[in-house]
Amino acid sequence: MLTKKHNFGAGPCILPDSVLTRASEAVKHWDRADLSILEISHRSTEFELVVRETEFLVRELLDVPETYSILFLQGGASMQFAMVPMNFLGTGQKAAYLEAGFFGEKAIKEARISGDVTVVATSKDTHYRSIPREYNIPADAAYFHTTSNNTIEGTEMFNFPKSPVPVVCDMSSDIFSRVINISDFDLIYAGAQKNMGPAGMTLVIVKNSFLDGIKNPVHAILDYRVYRANGSMYNTPPVFAIYTAMLNLQWLKSKGGVKFIHMANLAKAQLLYDEIDNNPLFYGLAEKTDRSLMNVTFRMYDKEKEEEFLSYAAGRGMVGIKGYRTIGGFRASLYNALPLESVQALVDCMKTYIFKTKQNLVQV
Amino acid sequence: MLTKKHNFGAGPCILPDSVLTRASEAVKHWDRADLSILEISHRSTEFELVVRETEFLVRELLDVPETYSILFLQGGASMQFAMVPMNFLGTGQKAAYLEAGFFGEKAIKEARISGDVTVVATSKDTHYRSIPREYNIPADAAYFHTTSNNTIEGTEMFNFPKSPVPVVCDMSSDIFSRVINISDFDLIYAGAQKNMGPAGMTLVIVKNSFLDGIKNPVHAILDYRVYRANGSMYNTPPVFAIYTAMLNLQWLKSKGGVKFIHMANLAKAQLLYDEIDNNPLFYGLAEKTDRSLMNVTFRMYDKEKEEEFLSYAAGRGMVGIKGYRTIGGFRASLYNALPLESVQALVDCMKTYIFKTKQNLVQV
Repeated sequence: MLTKKHNFGAGPCILPDSVLTRASEAVKHWDRADLSILEISHRSTEFELVVRETEFLVRELLDVPETYSILFLQGGASMQFAMVPMNFLGTGQKAAYLEAGFFGEKAIKEARISGDVTVVATSKDTHYRSIPREYNIPADAAYFHTTSNNTIEGTEMFNFPKSPVPVVCDMSSDIFSRVINISDFDLIYAGAQKNMGPAGMTLVIVKNSFLDGIKNPVHAILDYRVYRANGSMYNTPPVFAIYTAMLNLQWLKSKGGVKFIHMANLAKAQLLYDEIDNNPLFYGLAEKTDRSLMNVTFRMYDKEKEEEFLSYAAGRGMVGIKGYRTIGGFRASLYNALPLESVQALVDCMKTYIFKTKQNLVQV
Repeated sequence: MLTKKHNFGAGPCILPDSVLTRASEAVKHWDRADLSILEISHRSTEFELVVRETEFLVRELLDVPETYSILFLQGGASMQFAMVPMNFLGTGQKAAYLEAGFFGEKAIKEARISGDVTVVATSKDTHYRSIPREYNIPADAAYFHTTSNNTIEGTEMFNFPKSPVPVVCDMSSDIFSRVINISDFDLIYAGAQKNMGPAGMTLVIVKNSFLDGIKNPVHAILDYRVYRANGSMYNTPPVFAIYTAMLNLQWLKSKGGVKFIHMANLAKAQLLYDEIDNNPLFYGLAEKTDRSLMNVTFRMYDKEKEEEFLSYAAGRGMVGIKGYRTIGGFRASLYNALPLESVQALVDCMKTYIFKTKQNLVQV
């Protein structure tokens, strides 16, 4: 008999069972079109309704003002690292970036291919274990770019600075996990494969006036305005990924929306951080004030034991808790669909592993 | 009781039933990883094996030499319209394009954003009903770009010119449908949503020496070399689309591969073109010598009857035979997974519609 899996993967990650069931059924036969969801035309009325409903759910769940457009793209956050400067960094301009993690660093590297970048602050010297707080955003920057949640390092930005210039934010790993004030941002992007849906689509929420200011010549498929003008259907969109995202957002709505899932996420994170802080074998990697609710990074004081703990946990059904290769240790991702029971199961592993260790000592 | 659907959609399009069944099962529960295919890490060994097997199947089915790389990207052919000139059209260079259809025209428009373009020949003045034959490719062009099959107009290129410069070909709508000599090309690209798999992935087959010559500074996610260096996993790939493509290529292999499916495709196309040519109500749109095996475009002499024929056919289970909006009339796409029985069903509609019309006349 197989142990029930507890999926702590960092993305692609756990999705609700009911979403998987409905997505699976639609691949076999989607009643609405009397075909598989993989076989329908993206120009069909049936699919047009899916795209518009997904858009509507994003707007409703995140309370997106009418002055913003909601777009679905491909290529993940990495494509946004390129598209943001291609669209918004004009000749002779510079962009301001906060460097608080591995992906922020990648975004900076990509922006430098398009133009000049000012790094307003960095926590690289402390391996990104915290998010810099004191910095100035130059008033002549084309935009300010930041990352709301650092998936690899396990830090999250709970306060965003007042900015004299438009704010662009990579929210790939915490979008839909907590209430945010959309009006504080001019462009938000997120790879879907965490709290939104399967890999293969990207969400962009963008203020229309910010888009209207684009002057750079950009290829159609890399131009946000083309997606806006065509309702995200300039070319064939990732049909199945959008459909599954719709199912997942319907599930989120049925759970009470972002406000309620945020409370559940707080409870899950607290359960795990409490164990990390109280268990004598483990310690957390991120600065306490910046601890992410989505990605919990931790290590063992005795690094030699980490491999053993990994197998011990794997034997009890834990999946995806190995830390990112440059960081080591463990990372447990607690995305929306992960139940509290899974966190409890991981905490139980951490507790019983002590016992196992003590037993071993006695036996030795 | 529902009529069995005959799916002639131009893409996303019909996929084999067995592929849909297996893909559907994997969304619910993928035994190999004991999770849903939507929930697995793209860095897991299980998925790494999927990517490598898909690559291997492409290599085997198309007989791709070892000197070529096989890459999986996102963004469809439209992204390739941008990436090709971004990567290969250097400053001060020009590219040569053949303009033989709506999508070729789009590719030219996008290339002009990056640099200079010479259109070597066009059939635009005859609404792209044929593929130009007499033209010269300038020996100083960076590359020559063409489209092997014009999805909208229903023409297909059966002979490719000898070119003094590297040849880039958009094979979105006829890849895997007939034997091609890969060595005649330097870069082939194809949106997956016809003969390869679901929407959301793009196949690129590229000669390594062609890639090695890239000098343009390109963002990582738009740089073919980055995909090669990372085995198509620079960032999170479209996991489900790749998995389903693997299933579909396994199916193609089980059918005897490209050579055998080509014979089946020839038979299907002949059945439909024969009816078009012999039925007094219909006529074909493409020049006979250039008729596509994949997309059959036709109209009725009496255009007023076209709406009625559409509903008549829809009532008999025909899906997706409405012609592209700029062309009108009908388009029946006969992709690999479409059975001969579906073509026969459409032919039967065309035959019985005459009878229906005659009856109406008698009744009137």
